[in-house]
Amino acid sequence: MIETGKGAPASRSALLDVLTRKPAERRPIWFMRQAGRYLPEYRAVREKAGSFLDLCYNPELAAEVTVQPLRRYDLDAAILFADILVVPHAMGLPLRFAEGEGPVLGSVRSMEDLEALRPVVGTHEVTQVCRTVGLTRAQLSPHQALIGFCGAPWTVASYMVGGGSSDRVLAKVAAYQRQPWFGALIDRLVRESIDYLSAQADAGAQVVQIFDSWAGDLIGTELVDFVLKPLAAIVAGVRARHPNLPVIVFARGVGMAQRRVAGIPGANAIGVETEFELSDLPKDVVVQGNLDPVSLLAGAEVVASEVKRICASVDRQRHIFNLGHGIRLGTDPTVVGAVVDAVRRCDG
Amino acid sequence: MIETGKGAPASRSALLDVLTRKPAERRPIWFMRQAGRYLPEYRAVREKAGSFLDLCYNPELAAEVTVQPLRRYDLDAAILFADILVVPHAMGLPLRFAEGEGPVLGSVRSMEDLEALRPVVGTHEVTQVCRTVGLTRAQLSPHQALIGFCGAPWTVASYMVGGGSSDRVLAKVAAYQRQPWFGALIDRLVRESIDYLSAQADAGAQVVQIFDSWAGDLIGTELVDFVLKPLAAIVAGVRARHPNLPVIVFARGVGMAQRRVAGIPGANAIGVETEFELSDLPKDVVVQGNLDPVSLLAGAEVVASEVKRICASVDRQRHIFNLGHGIRLGTDPTVVGAVVDAVRRCDG
Repeated sequence: MIETGKGAPASRSALLDVLTRKPAERRPIWFMRQAGRYLPEYRAVREKAGSFLDLCYNPELAAEVTVQPLRRYDLDAAILFADILVVPHAMGLPLRFAEGEGPVLGSVRSMEDLEALRPVVGTHEVTQVCRTVGLTRAQLSPHQALIGFCGAPWTVASYMVGGGSSDRVLAKVAAYQRQPWFGALIDRLVRESIDYLSAQADAGAQVVQIFDSWAGDLIGTELVDFVLKPLAAIVAGVRARHPNLPVIVFARGVGMAQRRVAGIPGANAIGVETEFELSDLPKDVVVQGNLDPVSLLAGAEVVASEVKRICASVDRQRHIFNLGHGIRLGTDPTVVGAVVDAVRRCDG
Repeated sequence: MIETGKGAPASRSALLDVLTRKPAERRPIWFMRQAGRYLPEYRAVREKAGSFLDLCYNPELAAEVTVQPLRRYDLDAAILFADILVVPHAMGLPLRFAEGEGPVLGSVRSMEDLEALRPVVGTHEVTQVCRTVGLTRAQLSPHQALIGFCGAPWTVASYMVGGGSSDRVLAKVAAYQRQPWFGALIDRLVRESIDYLSAQADAGAQVVQIFDSWAGDLIGTELVDFVLKPLAAIVAGVRARHPNLPVIVFARGVGMAQRRVAGIPGANAIGVETEFELSDLPKDVVVQGNLDPVSLLAGAEVVASEVKRICASVDRQRHIFNLGHGIRLGTDPTVVGAVVDAVRRCDG
């Protein structure tokens, strides 16, 4: 039995086994954005819930969509249904999701903007998300691990600076200029992320993942100061409070710098983007990824061959099968099933 | 004196020297998209010309905007003002540039679509572009090299399959499915690109660059078959007709696979994206890049420090200073000048 953090029931799961370097019964698999619009049952709940944010903050319905993909597929993990912008929203920034467009978020571009923000712990937003965690955990089998998550400081800051825009230019300029308020924002997000992930672990999350979706934007000293150091600080902070909680760090798009991400003390696994060759990592790293979500649009035959290639390139005792990015809208749910089948066949 | 291809006047230039491994007087520098909307003198000509395409096919005005940046800055090269979609346009696909949006291009999604296309040589479009080359060459000093270019097959095909969209999903699906018409499209683009670049060399281009802006989309066997092999085939085809014409291959975003791009027989230099660490390349490779265009938005002080870092990481005899991607709209022209000054200072 594995101790996986306060409040979490001990369980035997392939995901936890691989993360803690115990012999796993099978290669664990889950999908980024496995709860989403490509599933008709998700769309039905979403319609009932109202807006995307209404769904995020409705624990019963959010737990329902979190569990849905595990009813369809033999997956090794559920991932909390929430959004990386929950943290800035909980900090007090206005947030809405315009239909068909991206998020619209209040912006932070000065020390004054930053100082107006509140701590996330105890807010309605974080409380509701933690309720979702608890309700979800109660619906899962012991072999199905529950993953909590947050966005990484650089990625979340890029949305905060850009007012919700996925264009990171304003954030990059602030980073290059070493604006004091920008450094302070990153530091603040480190602290809030530690509190947020700890609250999820207290509520029943057995693993946490930090998503740095835009990590690939930065290089050199900016990569070190705004990606690598903040990620390391969050891992250390979470580890101090939850010594046995596995942490997955996903710094998407950093390419060769994935070796440096893998060197973050205390990180149990790294997630890698589709473009990364798994065999380029040292053999002692646990790696998660990296099937191309676009390959799922090309049909079951294509994904079977891609799965074979990926599984052959990394030992199953140090691999968590996943995509290199989230499942795309328009993906055929039967092809997602074909991926799971292909992974089981590879190791069978 | 250096022989640089039929029709081109012999000249002494730092760019040609570095490309042909002769001792160069200084580190050559030019900028991707150096002729563009960030320059007021460009905007004035563009207004006179009409649409973007009107400007591309007006040799006098296209030559004028090609030369403009060399009046402002002490650059080592001019790059032909044209667009990577000239080839599909010359092949007969309708093309227009919607103001403020991207291109709208007729699509190719079947063998029938492909077979309806004509060869580019002798078309109005290619004839006008070659006139621009000749008019431009006549206005340059011997130390200022003229670079011709084309888009690479994968990148151009992705626009052709997507109808001008910069979303490469349809092309990626066709590539994964190994659609016979898609393979035939790539092969056809290889042949047209060889003809197109040869025509530019005949007209006076002294160097050619192949832009594979979306090369980073592909991995594994798709990277080999739709990026690396087509690039190698174009280099070989151009080299057969113009033995002394230097070729720069820019496969943007392939990360660690840049070493494989550098191994393409006959390629004189590779261009690399901003995210690539120059020091990760073998010491015998001539490399072009890779200042972040966003850093130019952060001001002269930031770029001076970035230039210093880049110049320190690669010997000037095997480096062509450039950006990792095109100059962004909104860039301050004085900051572009500050980059040139900083490069000269580093080696001074």
